Amino acid sequence: MNKNLQIYNSHSGKKESFESINKGFVGLYVCGPTVYNYVHLGNCRTFISFDLVYRYLQHLGYKVRYVRNITDVGHLESDADTGEDKIAKKARLEEVEPMEIVQQYTINFHETMKRFNNLSPNIEPTATGHILEQIDLIQKIITNGFAYEAEGSVYFDVNKYNKSHAYGSLSGRKIEDLMNNTRDLDGQQEKRNPLDFALWKKASKEHLMKWPSPWSIGFPGWHLECSAMSTKYLGESFDIHGGGMDLKFPHHECEIAQGTSANCKDPVNYWMHANMLTLNGKKMSKSADNSILPEELFTGKNKHFSKSYNPMVIRFFMMQAHYRSTLDFTEDAINAAEKGYNRLFDGLELLQKVKTSDKSSESVEILISAFYAAMNDDFNAPILVANLFNAVKFINHINDGKASISSQDKIQLDKAMKDFIFNVLGLKQDTEIKSSKLDSLMDIIVDLRKQAREDKNWATSDKIRDGLQKAGIQIKDNKDGKTSWSSH
Amino acid sequence: MNKNLQIYNSHSGKKESFESINKGFVGLYVCGPTVYNYVHLGNCRTFISFDLVYRYLQHLGYKVRYVRNITDVGHLESDADTGEDKIAKKARLEEVEPMEIVQQYTINFHETMKRFNNLSPNIEPTATGHILEQIDLIQKIITNGFAYEAEGSVYFDVNKYNKSHAYGSLSGRKIEDLMNNTRDLDGQQEKRNPLDFALWKKASKEHLMKWPSPWSIGFPGWHLECSAMSTKYLGESFDIHGGGMDLKFPHHECEIAQGTSANCKDPVNYWMHANMLTLNGKKMSKSADNSILPEELFTGKNKHFSKSYNPMVIRFFMMQAHYRSTLDFTEDAINAAEKGYNRLFDGLELLQKVKTSDKSSESVEILISAFYAAMNDDFNAPILVANLFNAVKFINHINDGKASISSQDKIQLDKAMKDFIFNVLGLKQDTEIKSSKLDSLMDIIVDLRKQAREDKNWATSDKIRDGLQKAGIQIKDNKDGKTSWSSH
Repeated sequence: MNKNLQIYNSHSGKKESFESINKGFVGLYVCGPTVYNYVHLGNCRTFISFDLVYRYLQHLGYKVRYVRNITDVGHLESDADTGEDKIAKKARLEEVEPMEIVQQYTINFHETMKRFNNLSPNIEPTATGHILEQIDLIQKIITNGFAYEAEGSVYFDVNKYNKSHAYGSLSGRKIEDLMNNTRDLDGQQEKRNPLDFALWKKASKEHLMKWPSPWSIGFPGWHLECSAMSTKYLGESFDIHGGGMDLKFPHHECEIAQGTSANCKDPVNYWMHANMLTLNGKKMSKSADNSILPEELFTGKNKHFSKSYNPMVIRFFMMQAHYRSTLDFTEDAINAAEKGYNRLFDGLELLQKVKTSDKSSESVEILISAFYAAMNDDFNAPILVANLFNAVKFINHINDGKASISSQDKIQLDKAMKDFIFNVLGLKQDTEIKSSKLDSLMDIIVDLRKQAREDKNWATSDKIRDGLQKAGIQIKDNKDGKTSWSSH
Repeated sequence: MNKNLQIYNSHSGKKESFESINKGFVGLYVCGPTVYNYVHLGNCRTFISFDLVYRYLQHLGYKVRYVRNITDVGHLESDADTGEDKIAKKARLEEVEPMEIVQQYTINFHETMKRFNNLSPNIEPTATGHILEQIDLIQKIITNGFAYEAEGSVYFDVNKYNKSHAYGSLSGRKIEDLMNNTRDLDGQQEKRNPLDFALWKKASKEHLMKWPSPWSIGFPGWHLECSAMSTKYLGESFDIHGGGMDLKFPHHECEIAQGTSANCKDPVNYWMHANMLTLNGKKMSKSADNSILPEELFTGKNKHFSKSYNPMVIRFFMMQAHYRSTLDFTEDAINAAEKGYNRLFDGLELLQKVKTSDKSSESVEILISAFYAAMNDDFNAPILVANLFNAVKFINHINDGKASISSQDKIQLDKAMKDFIFNVLGLKQDTEIKSSKLDSLMDIIVDLRKQAREDKNWATSDKIRDGLQKAGIQIKDNKDGKTSWSSH
């Protein structure tokens, strides 16, 4: 097994050799969704990207503990600790209890992840499920002198922290520049410095989701939950923290500050960020009417694409771009991916059937090691896909008699291709397609039966009848001359 | 709409007219699973029974808030507050973090519920997500004088409570009898009375799941979570509390004591209990090798049944017994249910096709009102099913020319049958079946194509080729004379 894995560390800005803290084990934390709406396609790309990471680490033999949270409280509309809680606002608009919003969109999120064939994380903690852990973390940060209470809320003291640590080191921002870019906002008077962020917010009377704490009845700040839950389940320092590029600042910057000030150590060894999606060349945006939900892609009910796509085709399409590159959703590009997806599975199917020879005309070992080389280079899925197509070309040549493969090499190549296609890229052949094809096939059969009867070809019509009976399909000629069928 | 709903209240021991606390709204709480193992079939029956309740209440026009918890901490091996935490024990055996056990079996639970076509509850709270609410509840009970602290643990004072309230009223047990039946167990020395139950348990050093509290670092008692969560999401008094018969004592008895002593009111208006399952006449029991998992029923991989069953057939089978009756799983009974299931859907399909007349020979209104009468009589699904079969008989008679139906009545009956079959009973026609049939149909088509080619019947073989192309199916003649196909 080839373990020369290189990971691009967003914190250092370069590729680094991956070494896990505990040999053979990896702790992986990824920021999950705020469940107040249908998960959008950009988020899906992030979760698919880290599903690839999770799968490849496991393929390399690591025992991975993958933690991805559900944000069900504390994510306010504005990063400046103002505005309504996103979930509570939706609950108010829909006149339900906030936890009903959480349930509805958590279910949608899980269903969408499943359609994309993402593996479930090992632990999926919720922010409301870790209020005590968050309170405990705040107390540590206060004790260490990096947070202060004001009017029942607790804020992180960014200036104080920056004196001994480098605030902004992940996102490459300088505190002076940040300061110059802040405006005085309402509700910020309690802060010593506009850059300070809330660890605990005192709740107003109308506020729906709130808990007792040493400072007030209130709720935790959004940045806090990930620090509390990653520490609880992965330790004070862990291996890999992932998330979307948009979370780098302020969310991940604040996580580093919280973890470092609470535990006096850097919480994360490797930071990874997945890049954004565009739709037809433009930023996805609901307000600009340039956005699409996963479900709308799968059903074809949208105004951006003329047909529907299988989730596996979309996943394959995403795999054809590196996770750190932006990816543009266009009809031409996805149609091309669809062809590629079919070509890949056709190649794999063909491999099962090709004849073997005494010797291979090409080195299968080199073909396979290229799969590893691609993935070891910062999970470069598009290069992996290109290398898989090299294998498909080889298979086609074998089939055409232009190349040869030994039986042992055939077994090796088959295993490696299946490993990388199914287990690493997380693709699968779609069974859903089958269901919709049943009607088309029955149309053909009903038509052939009609023809046979008209031709008085009783042998054929009997054959059809017997075959359908065996398949458990009842066929019935109605009085109106039409034929119907049922499949009990 | 007929709203004369009668519910058998386990607390009073009789059927009562249902009146909800808030007109038009119903609060429904059902004890969910302890997620330390695959959900067993008996639990499934309970959740399917309350899915029926949830569905019918909604059909009657109620806006239902259905809360079903996930027990992820505090459920000890013994009801006497001793033994290991069930989840922590499994985590120790499997050498993982307890929350990994929770995640694994919560996913299995959700998947199984989905296969049975159970609707998701509106809120699915977890015990670990409500530690603060549980601490708050304990404080209320202590303040009201019904609980005491001992060595960092807090116990409910059953004797004290029984002086002013009737402990045992739900399960019909007398405290004197209970006292006579208790033995002195290890770890019970802190209790004033062996019947007292833990609200909070001080954790040992090795204990994995623990939180700070005013009394100790520890964990909540199992009975407490349901009181805390039902109060939080449904109020201090709510309409319906359901669960399996095995939870009546001590779990539900303790819930009544907790709620009453904390809030000075009876927490629940209607208690409902679903009865148990047997397998081939005997109690299901893993240790006696007389048990079966839902998955084993669906795959047929088990030693009790000679074939596999569709989840909808199992659901239909369960609907043929009243939820308060025991139900025996036998091969003959399920096979009979399978036939009934098919007969019901055949009848519904036939209804779409029958010719209408000027007048109906039977009163459709009476047929439909019988559906309501059955369900209004304490959710009597088996009577509903019998009444649906009366409708099927009528449909068959129409088809045979022995009865007639007007076009308006046909529309009415169709709507009512679909409402009760799909929305109330929660049955659906299976699409999974379709997928497996695809192969059989392709066998027929490939065979017909071969025959046509042998007969030099090019018109037919062209027709097949065109039909398959339209269906998106590629057919390929291999060198070995066999024909393969792929459906991209």
